[in-house]
Parts: sequence; structure tokens; C-alpha cells
Amino acid sequence: MSNNVAQPEFVDTTVKVRYAETDQMGIVYYANYLVWFEVGRVAWCKAKGFRYADMEISDRRYLIVAEASCRYKSPAHFEDEIVVRTALGKSNDRVIRYRYEIRRKDDGRLLATGETAHVVSDSNHRPSRLPDRYREYFSLPARRMSPVTE
Amino acid sequence: MSNNVAQPEFVDTTVKVRYAETDQMGIVYYANYLVWFEVGRVAWCKAKGFRYADMEISDRRYLIVAEASCRYKSPAHFEDEIVVRTALGKSNDRVIRYRYEIRRKDDGRLLATGETAHVVSDSNHRPSRLPDRYREYFSLPARRMSPVTE
Amino acid sequence: MSNNVAQPEFVDTTVKVRYAETDQMGIVYYANYLVWFEVGRVAWCKAKGFRYADMEISDRRYLIVAEASCRYKSPAHFEDEIVVRTALGKSNDRVIRYRYEIRRKDDGRLLATGETAHVVSDSNHRPSRLPDRYREYFSLPARRMSPVTE
Amino acid sequence: MSNNVAQPEFVDTTVKVRYAETDQMGIVYYANYLVWFEVGRVAWCKAKGFRYADMEISDRRYLIVAEASCRYKSPAHFEDEIVVRTALGKSNDRVIRYRYEIRRKDDGRLLATGETAHVVSDSNHRPSRLPDRYREYFSLPARRMSPVTE
Repeated sequence: MSNNVAQPEFVDTTVKVRYAETDQMGIVYYANYLVWFEVGRVAWCKAKGFRYADMEISDRRYLIVAEASCRYKSPAHFEDEIVVRTALGKSNDRVIRYRYEIRRKDDGRLLATGETAHVVSDSNHRPSRLPDRYREYFSLPARRMSPVTE
Repeated sequence: MSNNVAQPEFVDTTVKVRYAETDQMGIVYYANYLVWFEVGRVAWCKAKGFRYADMEISDRRYLIVAEASCRYKSPAHFEDEIVVRTALGKSNDRVIRYRYEIRRKDDGRLLATGETAHVVSDSNHRPSRLPDRYREYFSLPARRMSPVTE
Repeated sequence: MSNNVAQPEFVDTTVKVRYAETDQMGIVYYANYLVWFEVGRVAWCKAKGFRYADMEISDRRYLIVAEASCRYKSPAHFEDEIVVRTALGKSNDRVIRYRYEIRRKDDGRLLATGETAHVVSDSNHRPSRLPDRYREYFSLPARRMSPVTE
Repeated sequence: MSNNVAQPEFVDTTVKVRYAETDQMGIVYYANYLVWFEVGRVAWCKAKGFRYADMEISDRRYLIVAEASCRYKSPAHFEDEIVVRTALGKSNDRVIRYRYEIRRKDDGRLLATGETAHVVSDSNHRPSRLPDRYREYFSLPARRMSPVTE
């Protein structure tokens, strides 16, 4: 009931491959795609109208990663412009899911796809709930404030 | 036919959580588990009797990551001693799979599990085959030397 | 004789602080400033008219870091917009030097300063010389093609 | 008066080069030496009899990096065993200094040297003082408990 339908709407942001991100195979080291996913999530929050940093600072809610996966289709190289595309997946006020596409900017080639799941947590890393004012950002219906008002 | 049965045999190695690996949530940043998986693979190779570095240098074969996933169960903290347990998954001479357990050393608590899949590639990042002399390390049967024996 | 005068001309580029770059102190981990210096160097090359990647791929010359230093004046935080300012230091065709300023974008506050020195090397990591066509980018006078013309 | 003499006594710890730490030049990326310095500091604390983590958790004191420098003499490669040697430099109860040697284990070759300076800070990142009980670890004389003795 509290789930929303997975959103097909991608938010795009661009990163440029850093030398630090390459490895001796001459391509981007695989763990760095998860860093790019994080860059994508931050851009997604901004596009929705809030700063993820504020959720932590003002609301003491944290999105702790519970699952992450990535499928690597074609390598990324130093100085490549990379488009990180981020979309909300099936989420509720306790678990937020995202999915990602990593594409090379100049030819649009799909380099990787991925998903992450995040548990909404309090400042002690315990499971919590999304503050109400964030529900709309995650396409969740407003909570009924009081059943008697209906 | 060329697949081997997944090996339940784990090779263990230990890492100590670095300050660099923590983030402002006070726990290890999620991408670093994939770095630990790599540390686990290198230890697994060594336990099996070869150096992964030599496969690259002497045999010009590379294990390019095709898939990676991780489920995070409990956070790791700065200075924690972490046991990275690595086992071969279902593999053949073109695709190698590993699975991992990340445990806290002092109490054995399971912090994360994961899997990776790797495509055996040549120095141009093109799909290739495991050199014959590595087959036994990966529990693959020796290749029949001559088709006339069939 | 072959040295040029240190250039006061800064090239600016912007990075946004990633969650991955923070540590449990809640600020950017100190090693990441050296990554930003590298981002600054790449932007400097681009502003001068060449891609550093091409120097490696086409000319087989590498700028191997010989020295790096950083003075940290004020911490950087997650989601801060950071201006990386890069200027050429005293250089010749064997050793290239850069200096850097790291500033917070919104108020211009100086967060760090730094320097790096790089040895021009060949693909075997042996000291070499800057290819002639790159001399002008580094404000080095053209080499006399033949002493008899003097 | 409150300065101690620089200690020539090195504490050694070993790291093994990770694939993640290499770059497309086939050697360890330069920023990672600063991570190794941090590994060295943590080992130094342990050798002296305390955990750096406890200084943060129990005493709310942080060693915020104010300066770092590194001179790179010979590259480190994947799977190299690296000895990180850490010694206390000229320090007082407000500023702690370390110096480092990075050596290849198998032949003892010096790969890099470095220094860091750290400001003792409180949990708000403001300059503070080393708690008295840590003074001996840093070879600082005990503070006179009562001014009347002067």
C-alpha cells in the first residue's frame, strides 16, 4: 500500500573520469561505479528539490546502503565524460531503492547498470522512517494525519 | 560440461579498517567492500598457489569484472579487524565467479555477503580463455589434449 | 636557462564534494586533496589546449609525481562546491611543477594550498623529456633546431 | 619548552598493494601514500599503547591534518609488500608531527618519505590540547599539577 510505482524518470548528472579512478588495467576500477551511483543519488535529490546533506544535518535521517549491485558492460577510461542516470525504484518510507545507468557521454554507450537499496535510519544507525516532509520527493502519498478527519 | 561445482571452501584474509575507508556516517563507505572483495580474490589466488599479478604479467590474461553485488548487514567501523572470506563460485574457463563473506573478526559477526563475476580477457580487454595451466587452480578439469581421443 | 618563470595564471575547475570523500570526522579525508590536484592538472592541460590523456597515449610521455605537499587551512564538507585553482610552477622540459589553491566556491574561502612536482618519463617510468610540441603549453621556449643557425 | 626532541624510533607496519591502489600508469596512485601514512599512524599509536579510535570516542580529541608532504622515489606495484615506517616528529600538546618512510619489504628499497602535522582538535574541529593521559605516549613531560610548585 505504501509502495509507489517504480519511477522511470531518470535524473542525469555528469562526471569526468579521474586518473585516481583508473587501475593498472587502464580502465576505471570497478568499485568506483558505486561512488558514481552516490553522485547520481545526490544529483537526484537536488533535482527533486532537497539536499541529501540537509536530511542528515536537519532531520537526522540517513540512507544506509543495504544492497548494491552493478553489471559492467563496457569499460570507462580516463578523461571520459560519463553520464550517471539515476531513477527511483520501488520505495516506501522505510526502504528507498534506486537504479542507475552509466553511459559514455560522447556516444551514449551504456557502460553499466546498477541498483541500490537503502534503509532509512536514525543517527544511531537504527531503522527509522522517512520524515513526512520528504515523502513527496520520493513519490510517496502524504500520510493521513488522523483517521477521524476522513 | 566445463563448469565445475561451486566450491564451498573459503579462503580467509584479514584487513583492518582504515580511516580513509570511513565516511561521515561514521562507518565504512559502501564501495570499499568491493575493494575488500578484491583483497579476498588476491588472497584466494595465493592460497591456491599462484599470484594474480603473474597471470597479468606472464600470461596476459585479465579477470575483468562483469558483475558485482553486495548485501550490507551490519556496519564496519574504523580499526575493526575484518575477515574477508572468499570462495570460488560456479566457473568455467571463460567466466570466473566468486562469493564473499565479510565478518568482524572479534565476534565473527557477518557484516556483508557478496558475489562477483569476471570475464577472462586478453590484454585488449577482449574475451579470452583461462590459460591451461591455471585450470586446476579454478577446479576445472584438464582439457583433453587431442580431439581424436574422443 | 631552460626554466621558465613561474606562471601566476590560475586555471579554475570545480568539483563537488562526494560522500565517498568524507571520513568519520565529518570532513573531507586529507588524501583526497591530492586527487583534486590531479583534477586541477587535467583542467589546466585542457585550458592550455591539449589532453593529458593524449600525451600518454600518443606521445608515450608520463608525468610521474616526484613530490606533493598540501597545507590544510579549513575543512571541506560533503556537497561543498570546491574550486580547484591550478598554476604552472617553475618548470623545464624534464620537471614540471604545479601549485594549487583549493577554495570553497560560495564564499571563496581558502581551504588548502599545495604543490606537486612531476618528472617527465617514458613508458618504462624512466626520466625523459617533454616532446617538443608540448613546450609551448608549458611556457618553454622552442628548442633551437640546429646550433649552426646561431 | 613543551616540545620534545624528535624521536628517531620508527614503528613498522606492513600493507600489501591493492589493485584498487594502482592507476593506469601501472603503479600506485600518489594519493594512496597518504592513506598508508594514516595506516602507519594507527600502528604507531597501537605500538605506544593506545588506540587512536579511543582518543576520538572516549576523549573527543581529533588529530586534524594541517600539513602533509611526500617525496616519491621509486614506484610501488600491485601485490608489493610495503613497510610503512612511522616516527614521531617534533611535537607538543597542540601540534603532533610524524615522519614516514615507505619501503618495499623484499629488498628494503626506499620508495617514499613523508611528513604530516596534525592539530589537536575538539569535536567541533577547534584547536584543543592533548589530554594529559596521552602526554607520555607522545614523549611529552607530565604537566605540573599545581602552579604553586613553580
